[in-house]
Amino acid sequence: MTTILHGNIIHAPSFGTLETIPDGYLILEDGVLRALSPVLPAQYASCPVTDYGDGLILPSFADLHLHAPQYPMLGMGMDLPLMEWLSAYTFRTEARFADPEYARRICRQLARDLITSGTTRVAMFSSCHTAATLILMEELEKAGVTGYVGKVNMDRSSGPVQEDTVRSVAETLRWLDGCQDFHLVSPIITPRFVPSCTNELLAGLGTLARERGLPVQSHLSESAGEVELVAQLHPDCARYWEIYNKYGLWKERTLMAHCVLSDPREQEAMAEAGVWAVHCAASNVNLCSGTAGVRALLNRGVHVALGSDIAGGDQLAMNRVIVDSIRASKLRQMETGEPFLTMPEAYYLGSSAGHIYFGGGAGFQTGCKLHAVVVNDARLPEPARELNLAERFERAVYLMDRTDIRAVYSEGVNRL
Amino acid sequence: MTTILHGNIIHAPSFGTLETIPDGYLILEDGVLRALSPVLPAQYASCPVTDYGDGLILPSFADLHLHAPQYPMLGMGMDLPLMEWLSAYTFRTEARFADPEYARRICRQLARDLITSGTTRVAMFSSCHTAATLILMEELEKAGVTGYVGKVNMDRSSGPVQEDTVRSVAETLRWLDGCQDFHLVSPIITPRFVPSCTNELLAGLGTLARERGLPVQSHLSESAGEVELVAQLHPDCARYWEIYNKYGLWKERTLMAHCVLSDPREQEAMAEAGVWAVHCAASNVNLCSGTAGVRALLNRGVHVALGSDIAGGDQLAMNRVIVDSIRASKLRQMETGEPFLTMPEAYYLGSSAGHIYFGGGAGFQTGCKLHAVVVNDARLPEPARELNLAERFERAVYLMDRTDIRAVYSEGVNRL
Repeated sequence: MTTILHGNIIHAPSFGTLETIPDGYLILEDGVLRALSPVLPAQYASCPVTDYGDGLILPSFADLHLHAPQYPMLGMGMDLPLMEWLSAYTFRTEARFADPEYARRICRQLARDLITSGTTRVAMFSSCHTAATLILMEELEKAGVTGYVGKVNMDRSSGPVQEDTVRSVAETLRWLDGCQDFHLVSPIITPRFVPSCTNELLAGLGTLARERGLPVQSHLSESAGEVELVAQLHPDCARYWEIYNKYGLWKERTLMAHCVLSDPREQEAMAEAGVWAVHCAASNVNLCSGTAGVRALLNRGVHVALGSDIAGGDQLAMNRVIVDSIRASKLRQMETGEPFLTMPEAYYLGSSAGHIYFGGGAGFQTGCKLHAVVVNDARLPEPARELNLAERFERAVYLMDRTDIRAVYSEGVNRL
Repeated sequence: MTTILHGNIIHAPSFGTLETIPDGYLILEDGVLRALSPVLPAQYASCPVTDYGDGLILPSFADLHLHAPQYPMLGMGMDLPLMEWLSAYTFRTEARFADPEYARRICRQLARDLITSGTTRVAMFSSCHTAATLILMEELEKAGVTGYVGKVNMDRSSGPVQEDTVRSVAETLRWLDGCQDFHLVSPIITPRFVPSCTNELLAGLGTLARERGLPVQSHLSESAGEVELVAQLHPDCARYWEIYNKYGLWKERTLMAHCVLSDPREQEAMAEAGVWAVHCAASNVNLCSGTAGVRALLNRGVHVALGSDIAGGDQLAMNRVIVDSIRASKLRQMETGEPFLTMPEAYYLGSSAGHIYFGGGAGFQTGCKLHAVVVNDARLPEPARELNLAERFERAVYLMDRTDIRAVYSEGVNRL
């Protein structure tokens, strides 16, 4: 089946570049992008066109770090220090995922809110609950959100959501058995982070990741207190990342959220192993963790993507996460001189990088299923002169909200 | 005429405190708040009640620094250094206010967008154009926005919007003559900032402010380059603020935007004179100016309010400006140890402080005309447990957008 979309096409085919096709066409066959064209090719002249008129057609967003069971506490407890925030809000909120009906309502709302804000690919933490995690995957799939979901494992210092070590692994196996029939989402091994996991658990999960060929996600070097605690807990490892490495969790495509305090050696270890850093700018500020050295990570050859980090982050919409990344980078520039992220660069990290992680293209790449968002910017302030597409794009990323989004294509299908 | 509003009442009667009245009543006579009450007083039992049900009723926002003619460039050019941003966007955009029809469209949209985002009091820069400034005042008044508006004066280094000194003063007089019939908005003397104004112009404006008893607004110590330039231009004054003082512009209720680089002596001079600092967190990050020492200003007894600083800032909605102020303060805490602004504190600065500046009360003060916003938070994620009003308030300030606002009272009248 041929589908043709018409509108103003904007994408980031490589880091730091923006390509625009005013009044252009996207030609899809069965949801797969076959061509981008400034004119409608003659052989498609008789095909019906979905006309977005003066709208902006951009690759959709990819959110590579967020916690589904924390969605109910979005924007709350932000004045609390990290440890109080965890005990007063986080663990108690996650514990509610023991109730499958509650979990379904939250997951349905989250999945829908992801689509309506233009996010079509995710790497997501669930809670420790097997049933809730399968429900989350069902709801994402129903809404058309694609990517990875992990049942979280945590068998120490985790308050009301702490698991028994043996049971944590057993439940993970039971969860993996339940994942067979999903098409858009698949499982990712998810030790919460070193302070919440015993060596036994880490070893078990590492074995599972290897035996089943599963990817891994966790947290790394987020805050000073955490890094210090990890050093105390693991006198056997000189550096934080070595613990993940020791247990087989540090490998190609492992996602590590935050990396705020990663030193050059840790950054090099990421580049060498093909581990990805997921930058969570809003959360790093909200929880007073710091500003991550994104430019340094990139310069060392580390793959970087962005995460909303719901609910340490307070905004689910990835266009706001992109803006927060630019702002954090400007503050870091003032601090360290490291040049800030430009809009095309930050957009690449919040869109292209995540699509690449999942095997998609950077920007609108032919041969890939379409992941796109269509934005109507007519509500935005009347400009002083005619704007070029790069200007309209920048303005849209800064200002748009869900009411400006006209269509969201995930795997070639409009899911809005 | 008696008006009674019912809902969940939340306000910040003093810096750092939050008072909540669940399921309470606001009693108004001719728009003036007469009582706040947890129950409907018996004598009003027969009066009709405007019932906002489970909605949140909060004092509205006050935006004490923004540039109306820059609204068309909102969210654009943010990757440019300050001087390029000024020449590529700012001056050229402001120059368009020479066209009254264009100015009217922009001002109408801005005034409407202020109301729909809950801002009812402003201190605003217009452009240098007399006609456009009067149009701006008309449109604000029609929409129900109250406060101060200034025709901008600038007779040096101001590109296409530079004025002749004599004409700048003459036009200011002509503008003041045209301001007689406004009820909600009144004029404020507005030298753009020292680098844009000759001594002659500053002297003329100082005289005018004194003779007519008019307030003053300008910019102070925003960025390093600017502070350096001012020092070069004024070897006669040891410090930036002394120039405003020399020409009669540094006085009780003068509004000074930014104050990022104000040193302790400048901060003391503000406190002594009763000059207000307007903190513009988003703009200070976007333009790489720095993070202002808000806590230090407050500790020295300086009055501080918040400004969106459209279009150095990218968000008109003051709830986002409040969040940006909290974030900037967290980054500053990490840098300097200065404790961050809590939500009740930042909300006080973005609401109560501005209302006080204009003679209103801190929070819902009886005897004052009502300035309030009513928020419906039902769209926000389902919480994990019943929330108290302080939690719902924090979440609303972080997450709400214009679609969540049900009513906006300005001077006692719902203008939405």
